[in-house]
Amino acid sequence: MSIVAIIEFDEAGVATGSRLGDAATPVLRVDDLGPTRGDGVFETASLVHGNVQALEAHLARFVQSAAMLELPRPDVEIWRDAVRAVAASLTSQGVTSGSIKFVLTRGVEGSGVPTGWVLGTASPDFTRERTDGIRVVLLDRGYRHDVPQTAPWLLAGAKTLSYAVNRAAQREAARRGADDVLFVSSDGYLLEGPTSSLLLRLGSRLVTPRVDLGILAGTTQADLFTWAESAGYATGYELLTPDDLESADAAWLVSSVRHVAPVRSVDGRHRAVDGELTGRLNAALDARTS
Amino acid sequence: MSIVAIIEFDEAGVATGSRLGDAATPVLRVDDLGPTRGDGVFETASLVHGNVQALEAHLARFVQSAAMLELPRPDVEIWRDAVRAVAASLTSQGVTSGSIKFVLTRGVEGSGVPTGWVLGTASPDFTRERTDGIRVVLLDRGYRHDVPQTAPWLLAGAKTLSYAVNRAAQREAARRGADDVLFVSSDGYLLEGPTSSLLLRLGSRLVTPRVDLGILAGTTQADLFTWAESAGYATGYELLTPDDLESADAAWLVSSVRHVAPVRSVDGRHRAVDGELTGRLNAALDARTS
Repeated sequence: MSIVAIIEFDEAGVATGSRLGDAATPVLRVDDLGPTRGDGVFETASLVHGNVQALEAHLARFVQSAAMLELPRPDVEIWRDAVRAVAASLTSQGVTSGSIKFVLTRGVEGSGVPTGWVLGTASPDFTRERTDGIRVVLLDRGYRHDVPQTAPWLLAGAKTLSYAVNRAAQREAARRGADDVLFVSSDGYLLEGPTSSLLLRLGSRLVTPRVDLGILAGTTQADLFTWAESAGYATGYELLTPDDLESADAAWLVSSVRHVAPVRSVDGRHRAVDGELTGRLNAALDARTS
Repeated sequence: MSIVAIIEFDEAGVATGSRLGDAATPVLRVDDLGPTRGDGVFETASLVHGNVQALEAHLARFVQSAAMLELPRPDVEIWRDAVRAVAASLTSQGVTSGSIKFVLTRGVEGSGVPTGWVLGTASPDFTRERTDGIRVVLLDRGYRHDVPQTAPWLLAGAKTLSYAVNRAAQREAARRGADDVLFVSSDGYLLEGPTSSLLLRLGSRLVTPRVDLGILAGTTQADLFTWAESAGYATGYELLTPDDLESADAAWLVSSVRHVAPVRSVDGRHRAVDGELTGRLNAALDARTS
């Protein structure tokens, strides 16, 4: 079950609206810089019982990623409307749990007109990952923790279409008998997963790696911090190392669609899952109304 | 002037042939892992007076990149035929200088069927770059020189569709008033350009960085080495540093379509262009018959 909305642009590259279509109908040209260069940005939001979760945070990050790639600034109103139209269409067809991906590419080379679409898809069942947890391996991301400051052209922290490395890392995890990856900077700091943020519980504190390490500001992690503060936890953005992960009371990879997945092993070493807090975190995400 | 050949696959993902089409007709779905994840590989060959230059070397590297991404092995006969059909079509329409890009993506997510196409386009005139030369800036690639051995999931040395960083680096070069980039590893070794290889003349030797540094094995550089050896130059693959570039008798960025572009400045510092040898190198490339 998939539905797509194509963003319409005029000849000057200004977005004018969107129209719903069928995801199985080809709409992209082979000379579009999205498919030929991974030259574009995206977001993936969760659709739960008709509500697109954290939509405004996703739109804000979409605008920020576009700025980092010097793409035309997305017209947030048009994108929001397109996302809602896709969400409404999926919901009307009985989808209660889905994902909404929105993508902006630099468009056909030389045209000056970007390409954009919103793709909605029914989600698989993540109950097992959310309760039993996931096996994680630590993999070198290759970059020092300070590249966003020293080498901004590496686009660390932008959510680009150039995800071949993220996909290769996930294949490496599978090869090692694991479910997912936690990237580590070349100088030894915990970063993020290929499609998730890291969350640790250290006593009564919930912490996540600092965003200035060239990682995405997690939309799901931000909502969890909001809930955690209301529930009496302190929260913090920190420089964290594999030793911190080893000694943490609990660890999770959190993301828009899979939500909160407890880490039940790291590099093959078992670790305890905090089932009670995991359940509360996932319930908090499900209870969101925006 | 563009022409495309679409590679046809059966339901099992086996290539069965190709058909010519119009590049302006959309053929890609929005749920193809090429446009959504930059998850694929490509090559770009030069078409000169009907001859696709270094085609076998490009096909071999295409197969190698596909293997690094664990994509289905391209059927070289079908791809070669498609490339030749596009080349013949462009040539019959009067194009004497063009580029032929061939692309393989992992296909629509979950389908197990890859997507492939060959795009032929008339080339712009590169006379100025080939004679007057180009201004180059050195930019950090972020990775240590040994990541191909320590972290193969970073795909260093595979020609993937995830080129957003290469494009951002080229924008950074333009911002600094330069034409192109030479990447340097985070530990200080010269690597390659975003779409080119580095060639240095050190006395009577032509040298290029070692391929085990996670750079592409240059098809154009290989042909130049073959010519150079016949012309009495020694050749070598070496660990090179910015100091080597500074002291080199001449430097070029070489690539399939632009061919040999002499480096006339590095980070704003002028350097002499060896016009005579540059001319001989470009003539050697033009004279290729395979």
